[in-house]
Amino acid sequence: MATRRVRKILENLADGTPASQIVRMLSQHGGMTAAQVARATGLARSTVSMAINALRQQQVVVETEDNAMQQNRSGAGRPGTIVTLNPKAGAIVGVHMGWDEVRIVVADISHTFIAERQIHLGVDFGPAEALASLRQAFDEFCDSGLLKKINLLGIGVSVSGPVSPGGVLQRGGILPRWAGLNIQHLFSKTFDCPVLVDNESNCAAVAELKWGAARGARDFVLFKMDVGVGGAVVSNGILVTGFNGGAGEFGHVSINPEGELCRCGNRGCLELYASFQKPLEQLSRVHRKSLTMEDAIALAESGDAGALRMIADVGDYGGRGMAMVGNILNPPLFVIGGRMALAGDLLLAPMRAAYSRHTLIKPQDGAMPVIQVGKFTENDSLLGAVGLVLNNYKMLVPS
Amino acid sequence: MATRRVRKILENLADGTPASQIVRMLSQHGGMTAAQVARATGLARSTVSMAINALRQQQVVVETEDNAMQQNRSGAGRPGTIVTLNPKAGAIVGVHMGWDEVRIVVADISHTFIAERQIHLGVDFGPAEALASLRQAFDEFCDSGLLKKINLLGIGVSVSGPVSPGGVLQRGGILPRWAGLNIQHLFSKTFDCPVLVDNESNCAAVAELKWGAARGARDFVLFKMDVGVGGAVVSNGILVTGFNGGAGEFGHVSINPEGELCRCGNRGCLELYASFQKPLEQLSRVHRKSLTMEDAIALAESGDAGALRMIADVGDYGGRGMAMVGNILNPPLFVIGGRMALAGDLLLAPMRAAYSRHTLIKPQDGAMPVIQVGKFTENDSLLGAVGLVLNNYKMLVPS
Repeated sequence: MATRRVRKILENLADGTPASQIVRMLSQHGGMTAAQVARATGLARSTVSMAINALRQQQVVVETEDNAMQQNRSGAGRPGTIVTLNPKAGAIVGVHMGWDEVRIVVADISHTFIAERQIHLGVDFGPAEALASLRQAFDEFCDSGLLKKINLLGIGVSVSGPVSPGGVLQRGGILPRWAGLNIQHLFSKTFDCPVLVDNESNCAAVAELKWGAARGARDFVLFKMDVGVGGAVVSNGILVTGFNGGAGEFGHVSINPEGELCRCGNRGCLELYASFQKPLEQLSRVHRKSLTMEDAIALAESGDAGALRMIADVGDYGGRGMAMVGNILNPPLFVIGGRMALAGDLLLAPMRAAYSRHTLIKPQDGAMPVIQVGKFTENDSLLGAVGLVLNNYKMLVPS
Repeated sequence: MATRRVRKILENLADGTPASQIVRMLSQHGGMTAAQVARATGLARSTVSMAINALRQQQVVVETEDNAMQQNRSGAGRPGTIVTLNPKAGAIVGVHMGWDEVRIVVADISHTFIAERQIHLGVDFGPAEALASLRQAFDEFCDSGLLKKINLLGIGVSVSGPVSPGGVLQRGGILPRWAGLNIQHLFSKTFDCPVLVDNESNCAAVAELKWGAARGARDFVLFKMDVGVGGAVVSNGILVTGFNGGAGEFGHVSINPEGELCRCGNRGCLELYASFQKPLEQLSRVHRKSLTMEDAIALAESGDAGALRMIADVGDYGGRGMAMVGNILNPPLFVIGGRMALAGDLLLAPMRAAYSRHTLIKPQDGAMPVIQVGKFTENDSLLGAVGLVLNNYKMLVPS
């Protein structure tokens, strides 16, 4: 079987050789031409061509004409064949467990999504039904040939809630029936393959760090604004998970201990002000119809004063929360994730103003951090779940 | 000159040999017996004895009968000669620049303070007078033979305020006449030797990490409560300074944006509630005399209700601040520094309660972080300034 041989070659590539640098580059960026690889690695063009030819003969890389990878390739229109890692060298399954649904994808080692399934389960779904549905989708992927079990490198699972380093969901705010369960064990038993589990925002940070808005960053903070507020911290290139998985829980910093009760059991959490859930209820009441976040953004873009104010207020609270993080970590980069980020500058302008207002180091003292929207706002957690598995194979990630 | 030869040997010790392990151990712990070294390194007792004998012949280590090092040595009463690194192998000068005074010490490479000078300058002192006073003390140390310039490895400087990686004081809250100045350049020009500068809380964290309450920790947060509130973050063994030196500024997280104006230009900063300055003014008013923090602690220990309440309230705010840090970093250990920490459990009990109340992960969900008083509460910044210089000599610090 070719696959096993290719995987063997991949696993045994010597560190620091042109071949291993090229493999890592392709694993990080997806498809690239030889010229792009040369520019990105700093290797001589002739060295790259020779190494790529050898890797092609070994079937470690393959030529591609047209692939549906999600990353933009600025050089795609230029002459030069695009090569990718051989998709047969391994497949990854990514799972995201959200509020009322699970999502499952099959990806190859260049993190291209080959197949995807979205399974609506309703709020408060439990382990038995979720695992059965996921197993069924998994079997269907196998039956249809989209996934070959022998290729499977592992399953990455993104979960809404803090996950301990051992794989236990620590709080069940969004998935109450999963609280205290070891999600890693549950998936390992169901799928009988390596399973890596992390919090959804940590997964999102993995995606933005590997392929997105934080590529090349040593230090950054992902600040996620959606129905909840959360995030992730990357320090010196390492994801900070905290000793029991509680790092990056920005949404549950209490900004008003006398405030309203939060689903987490605290009062006046940032999430009550900087997520779009409660503000959207207000806007819906004013407009006397149920509005989605997309509706609110469209209304704001058409000049609706209430929608503009709602987004500005959420941005103001978000910036205040980011300034708290800034006074604690002073990161050079904030990547804004979650569906609120789709509001763009309507959200970011008040966020930046509030950051400057509440941070210790002001614009007149020193440089302000870059605050920008993430690249994978809609898909970040699922893509990051795939990234968890790739990270587990050292030869596939940048050293 | 023996010194140069010894330093040369130190610099050329091969990594991983018993000799280099012993040198690092002694640099970290000060004086130890051969038995203690064997226990701490895991090397065989006979290997340690042989290596120590060789190092003694090379004059890299020396025997000591009675030394005034600040760390407690649990085995000091037992038989067995205590050895230390040869103090002649290098001297370090540590400086701390505080509110109304500067302190300067001479230390040897086992971080024993050999000489110390405290120079009162009054609040808002400027660079010219401070540098002149420090230079004078430095020259006196040299004249009296306490410091040999040829031995000097460098000067470490601890500063009250955020310091950029380049050595510039970013905010002048405590040292207004130094704001925007490059402190590293000023000291280098005055003393003509390597100079390392960092924020006082970062220095304190270096001391607690190398020799104190955080020894062996990969992740911890120093939370300092004194006339100001500040701290430091260590993640994966690395001090997080932030991209312009603003990390660990816990005191200036605004907990009430409508609150009183803070010296930093924000409103309702944690420092206004969790430092002892304002609460002490209240207690002084109640007792109709000017009280120090030491007075307040003594009053509380003798049962004074007002002093007990003041310390409890400060602890409550401190715990709330720590919970904010906890929801962002979830560290396994908080080391409490600053003079407030001298109140011990009177302070720590309400801090722990407030932490549990305001953190996302509650005692019923998972382990709580350890919250304990630092080892060098009175000297941490000065000792850490010495540590900055030792850190700069890789052979002297744990790898």
